Amino acid sequence: MKILDVTVTPVAIPDVPILNTKGVHSSVFLRSVIQVHTDIGLVGLAETYGAKRTLAGLNAAARGLEGLDAYDLQDLRRRVERALPDAGGVNAPTALADHKLVDVVYSAFELACLDLQGKHVGRPLYDLLGGAVRKTIPFGGYLFFKFAKQDLTFGPDMMGEVMTPDALVAQARDFVGRFGFRSLKLKGGVLEPDLEVETMLKLREAFPHHPLRIDPMGAWTVPTAKRVVDQLEGVLEYLEDPCRGMDAMAELSAQIALPLATNLVVVEFEQIIEAVRKDAVQIILSDHHYWRGPRGCIHLGEICRAAGLGVSMHSNSHLGISLAAMCHVAAATPNLTYDCDTHYPWSTKEIVRSGRPVFRDGALQVPEGPGLGVDLDHEAVAELHALYNRAMVKDRDDTDEMLKYIPDYVRKVPRW
Amino acid sequence: MKILDVTVTPVAIPDVPILNTKGVHSSVFLRSVIQVHTDIGLVGLAETYGAKRTLAGLNAAARGLEGLDAYDLQDLRRRVERALPDAGGVNAPTALADHKLVDVVYSAFELACLDLQGKHVGRPLYDLLGGAVRKTIPFGGYLFFKFAKQDLTFGPDMMGEVMTPDALVAQARDFVGRFGFRSLKLKGGVLEPDLEVETMLKLREAFPHHPLRIDPMGAWTVPTAKRVVDQLEGVLEYLEDPCRGMDAMAELSAQIALPLATNLVVVEFEQIIEAVRKDAVQIILSDHHYWRGPRGCIHLGEICRAAGLGVSMHSNSHLGISLAAMCHVAAATPNLTYDCDTHYPWSTKEIVRSGRPVFRDGALQVPEGPGLGVDLDHEAVAELHALYNRAMVKDRDDTDEMLKYIPDYVRKVPRW
Repeated sequence: MKILDVTVTPVAIPDVPILNTKGVHSSVFLRSVIQVHTDIGLVGLAETYGAKRTLAGLNAAARGLEGLDAYDLQDLRRRVERALPDAGGVNAPTALADHKLVDVVYSAFELACLDLQGKHVGRPLYDLLGGAVRKTIPFGGYLFFKFAKQDLTFGPDMMGEVMTPDALVAQARDFVGRFGFRSLKLKGGVLEPDLEVETMLKLREAFPHHPLRIDPMGAWTVPTAKRVVDQLEGVLEYLEDPCRGMDAMAELSAQIALPLATNLVVVEFEQIIEAVRKDAVQIILSDHHYWRGPRGCIHLGEICRAAGLGVSMHSNSHLGISLAAMCHVAAATPNLTYDCDTHYPWSTKEIVRSGRPVFRDGALQVPEGPGLGVDLDHEAVAELHALYNRAMVKDRDDTDEMLKYIPDYVRKVPRW
Repeated sequence: MKILDVTVTPVAIPDVPILNTKGVHSSVFLRSVIQVHTDIGLVGLAETYGAKRTLAGLNAAARGLEGLDAYDLQDLRRRVERALPDAGGVNAPTALADHKLVDVVYSAFELACLDLQGKHVGRPLYDLLGGAVRKTIPFGGYLFFKFAKQDLTFGPDMMGEVMTPDALVAQARDFVGRFGFRSLKLKGGVLEPDLEVETMLKLREAFPHHPLRIDPMGAWTVPTAKRVVDQLEGVLEYLEDPCRGMDAMAELSAQIALPLATNLVVVEFEQIIEAVRKDAVQIILSDHHYWRGPRGCIHLGEICRAAGLGVSMHSNSHLGISLAAMCHVAAATPNLTYDCDTHYPWSTKEIVRSGRPVFRDGALQVPEGPGLGVDLDHEAVAELHALYNRAMVKDRDDTDEMLKYIPDYVRKVPRW
């Protein structure tokens, strides 16, 4: 099953101004839709980041994939490394999409190859990862403070402004009502820490039995984080990336009993050992978009099991191909015992032919394949690609976007 | 692809009295040959240990495999655990075959399932592990001190007595001549350490460019091991299991620059972290017979890469199914950078239809599948099963066997 050619289609999806400590989401978010065509007529699908650097990396690698055997993921890795000779570093500066480009590009094509293998053999993707320990995949409600949307050119707002604890609780009620989520996560680092503590306490009051998490994306100093933890004792399931950097996380971790989770200080296999040695984190967030694909996520699960670490799952804004892949990976990761993150409820478009899946009690059924178990809605892709061309947004910069709302906004790490 | 039934056939293969620090090999070695029959007519193969406890475990698990989907390795794991509720412990006392029985039994059936998957999809097994980084698999010559064989009932001797450094070098010359090995490993812990040092120095003289290893199986105290290392500075590629126990290995490791390898103190995923924390070993020996199957070995490789550890491959006495599986695993483990161990040259029988493969320059070509790429020679299996019934040896006990040669032999750990 040899690859003939690869299509990488950037798409833009209407977004709403949800906030994080870096800034705010733009009017659209960007994704790349990948189609890998083979000599036996099968087409493998994948979806990943759509910002400039990833897109350039995907296209550079795509040119070198002709003739690749879709089962030979080792050869895929070599070809991606060859196509991106200067990109492998851990230390690239900015967003997740921009560091460790080789892993990101490899991850996307590994997913497409696994989709092909599943289609070839007539089995769901999870079977290529060792089989499913679960077919029902629980997701958590991902809550955000947000501005009211000003620019409605590319799509309507959702919920208006959400900038107080009470408004956030209302958002949670809406999400729980519509999707049935059984756990909730707040993207923190946006309001004063005391207000975010108040928000978590109000969420606890409103949802006494929902596991709760908060993720300030490294916005807090160690003393601030310690103060927050003291006030949220017994309220949180885990605390995600309260502080920036492995050493700050380790310093905090030594002072508290609450488990710390991360998708910032451990994003590469080589960082896990340091985290274990320093006891900096207790839970690592898996993500097939950058942990060397679905197979890398399975390895990550095994490593975490061996190291006595927990596993949860990270999300960026995404469409249904990624959602299906997340389900397959979650199905095949035995020790993924936390509800997965997903931004999915924050968008309304879809590019898979089956349309937007329905969450029941916050969970999705893993698609039964073959492969990913989703087909491409080519019209929808064309429409969102047209939006990409029209939108003039070709990169993600939440801080830059923030200046449209708060002209003197300055990004600070840590902020409090 | 559902499993209908499973056949587990114990076989005995004529062996020669090669020595290790526990004792000596018996007149036969034991293996189990596994055939997994499915509802679509495909038969999956595997080979593993044949001693009593493993055989009982295999049979107990086999009874629970009817209806298993050969792609659902998670379900396989659950079924094996259910069949062996009291067996999972790390701390079982005796030989490798006897500890962590769940992993051993799971490993065998995982191999058979992967063989089935490969046959089902028409691809070599290595493709189910992510593809091959190498198709030529280098093995090292595995050298043993040995007695002249006394009991020739079950087969002839090989080479007569080898109990001096010079005789060992002659053995090495014979092996290198016949198989072309490019590296050599001595099973040590048998003669006085000074004689084994002399042996290694003579091997170095005879084979100036061959990487050399010695494995005394924990026979030495830390000071003895330190003294050996001082004398073999620059001669050894690595030193395998010089001392017994994680702490002794760590104590030695702190005093020397030579890398330490192990298949004794790290045999489970959960032990890797302790080994890293204590810097007790620098290389872990992979073995698909107990590291949770071929997929477990791939995980082990990834974990070692993440932890900055090297990977080598362990062997017990084995036949061609295991040999093929070792080749597939080695092909798909990128960081397996050392020549694999194999006892293969020490036996003369074969149960695969293609017969005994030919080593060229110490290396084998990985079989090109589908699956393992080997078929069963049913007549040969029947013959070796008859030998199993006739031989009256149903367990492995090298120390007990040693008493036939040295009636007052006492097993000591450490010995020197």
